[in-house]
Amino acid sequence: MKTNWQTLTEPTLLLDTRIAKRNLQRMAEKAKRAGVVLNPHFKTHQSAEIGEWFRAAGISRISVSSLLMAEYFAGHGWNDITVLFPVNVRDLSRIKRLSASVSLTLNVISLGSARFLVEEVMQPVNLIVEVEAGYGRTGISVNDGDKIEKLLHYLQQQNRHRFYGFYIHAGHTYDVAGPEEVAEIHLQTLAALGQLKGRWMADFTELKIDMGDTPGCSIMEGFSGIHAIHPGNFIFYDLTQGAVGACEISDIAVCMACPVVAKEESRNEIVVHGGAVHFSKDWLTTAGDSGTQMIFGRPVQLSADRWGAPIPGGFVRKLSQEHGIIRLGREAFEEIQVGDLIGVLPVHSCLTADCMGKYLTEEGELLNMMPWRNRA
Amino acid sequence: MKTNWQTLTEPTLLLDTRIAKRNLQRMAEKAKRAGVVLNPHFKTHQSAEIGEWFRAAGISRISVSSLLMAEYFAGHGWNDITVLFPVNVRDLSRIKRLSASVSLTLNVISLGSARFLVEEVMQPVNLIVEVEAGYGRTGISVNDGDKIEKLLHYLQQQNRHRFYGFYIHAGHTYDVAGPEEVAEIHLQTLAALGQLKGRWMADFTELKIDMGDTPGCSIMEGFSGIHAIHPGNFIFYDLTQGAVGACEISDIAVCMACPVVAKEESRNEIVVHGGAVHFSKDWLTTAGDSGTQMIFGRPVQLSADRWGAPIPGGFVRKLSQEHGIIRLGREAFEEIQVGDLIGVLPVHSCLTADCMGKYLTEEGELLNMMPWRNRA
Repeated sequence: MKTNWQTLTEPTLLLDTRIAKRNLQRMAEKAKRAGVVLNPHFKTHQSAEIGEWFRAAGISRISVSSLLMAEYFAGHGWNDITVLFPVNVRDLSRIKRLSASVSLTLNVISLGSARFLVEEVMQPVNLIVEVEAGYGRTGISVNDGDKIEKLLHYLQQQNRHRFYGFYIHAGHTYDVAGPEEVAEIHLQTLAALGQLKGRWMADFTELKIDMGDTPGCSIMEGFSGIHAIHPGNFIFYDLTQGAVGACEISDIAVCMACPVVAKEESRNEIVVHGGAVHFSKDWLTTAGDSGTQMIFGRPVQLSADRWGAPIPGGFVRKLSQEHGIIRLGREAFEEIQVGDLIGVLPVHSCLTADCMGKYLTEEGELLNMMPWRNRA
Repeated sequence: MKTNWQTLTEPTLLLDTRIAKRNLQRMAEKAKRAGVVLNPHFKTHQSAEIGEWFRAAGISRISVSSLLMAEYFAGHGWNDITVLFPVNVRDLSRIKRLSASVSLTLNVISLGSARFLVEEVMQPVNLIVEVEAGYGRTGISVNDGDKIEKLLHYLQQQNRHRFYGFYIHAGHTYDVAGPEEVAEIHLQTLAALGQLKGRWMADFTELKIDMGDTPGCSIMEGFSGIHAIHPGNFIFYDLTQGAVGACEISDIAVCMACPVVAKEESRNEIVVHGGAVHFSKDWLTTAGDSGTQMIFGRPVQLSADRWGAPIPGGFVRKLSQEHGIIRLGREAFEEIQVGDLIGVLPVHSCLTADCMGKYLTEEGELLNMMPWRNRA
């Protein structure tokens, strides 16, 4: 059944497939130009149907953020999967099942996890060692030479699993003011990875160096020494990516349709059905009229099959469980009525998509996502 | 199939039903003592099975935050339902279906919405007018006498629907430093409602005054002039409620079990599988060692069927999509190993429950929630 966007009655995540496919094509072409493999992260869209667009673009290796997600995509015909999340040793049975059915690459960042995989998982897997250069999420610090030495010496001595190489997610590119800082981090990251490669390539002649992060992959052209890139968010982009200069606002491919349920004259604010259960609750800090302002989305006008540019001066000021409070300029406020539908561009499309679990395209078709909340 | 908490392999929302039932009993007894009706908000637990505990405690009227949720609970035998969210006029067909099958109370905050319901919905419903006294989310300001006059005069002139009375959600009790401020807001709220009642009770002799908000309902004993209270969060509580003094930390009834996947020696931090897709991304601001600190949860130790007090000095410093980064004191850090399971108390239990979609009890039973993401 096809649904026209204008007939929607409740919060619905819209996907403009024209924009998303353009984003995909652009990244695929960039990877080709740069001579790197595009090994896209599927944690953003989490959808077998969207995965097929990647397959059509020639992609054969993919990345995911959990074993469960690996299982979902393995069930949809993907057979070379990298899990870019530190291996969860409690989930041994899932690792065994997956390693028996696909070419599996697991992320190890400690000697203990490496030992565990050598001792407990008989089917060969690839091991990718995550390093970090200042982001402070996960990975062995590139400066912790000792820890890297011990882990790699252990990997040399065993012959059950194959050491793939190093991976770095320069996630601090999300916390910067603009593209110059992203570029600086990107160059530092390349330099750190280059040193690592220099140190180890005599011992591991097939050693590869991979990197993630959509800002770096979007802004930069050069990927010297890199084998594969693993961006994920670029398929949809969002306001956060716009803020760091990784995309134009017109590159954002998802938007929440929200029914307007109230108007507050004294504050030029509208209340919409569309809250933290729909968007999640990530925020962006921007310079506002009265100092810095946390915002949770940007309103746009919706038509039957597309949305416009952000309404000037408009922003989502607050999200509670089901309510969104949107501040507007006076003119836009006066034009909108209770019962209208308004679009909201998300701050963080990965979390918003995960909250909603499906997409409604401009053709009125529903695309499903991995139903991870429903498993027994 | 019963599951022991210690055998879990992936992020799982645990529910200690002993604590939740004690929270329910305490609120039911308080309402009885105060002579007010407990009309609990089911948006927090969203579970038909947990709803049955309320029925066993003598509850017959419930509140929800969307028409969809009303439909879910109507399907589970509840026939007096208040939708405490401004009526969504786009969803007329659902309003018609619901009003034909249950005693439905709808939230109107504008003349336009009231007219719409009078003209379009033939089956009588109750209309509750939401007012606000400084929170700035939704509702007509108690100071906007003119707007209230116009709406109530209109309601007097029609005889299709019944005017129930006023409702106030003093949501600013969530943003305060402690119980004294909650008490102050509560008293201001009562005073504002008292004035409204005084103005209108000659015209509407059955006029009722209701209020929501868990902090006010938890901390206060007196509810002078109030007919019903609509707290929701109290069934589980959370760190936010603990911070405003609405509960003890030992009253928190939900906790996320998270596998430990990495340790970062240099920062006394562990990495867990448990991120923004599991917790949502609400935060709490606390005074830390170096100024104010945003926290996203508090770690606790887990056993097979219960959890302990928060680990001293521990907090969730960062959440990304699937990762949680937990800072610990040195001693606790040294004790915990990769492969262990750790518990995390949520900042905002309503959003965390909504993310997870089900609960695992101390008896190892799964309780389901309304599957709102899965509908076609």
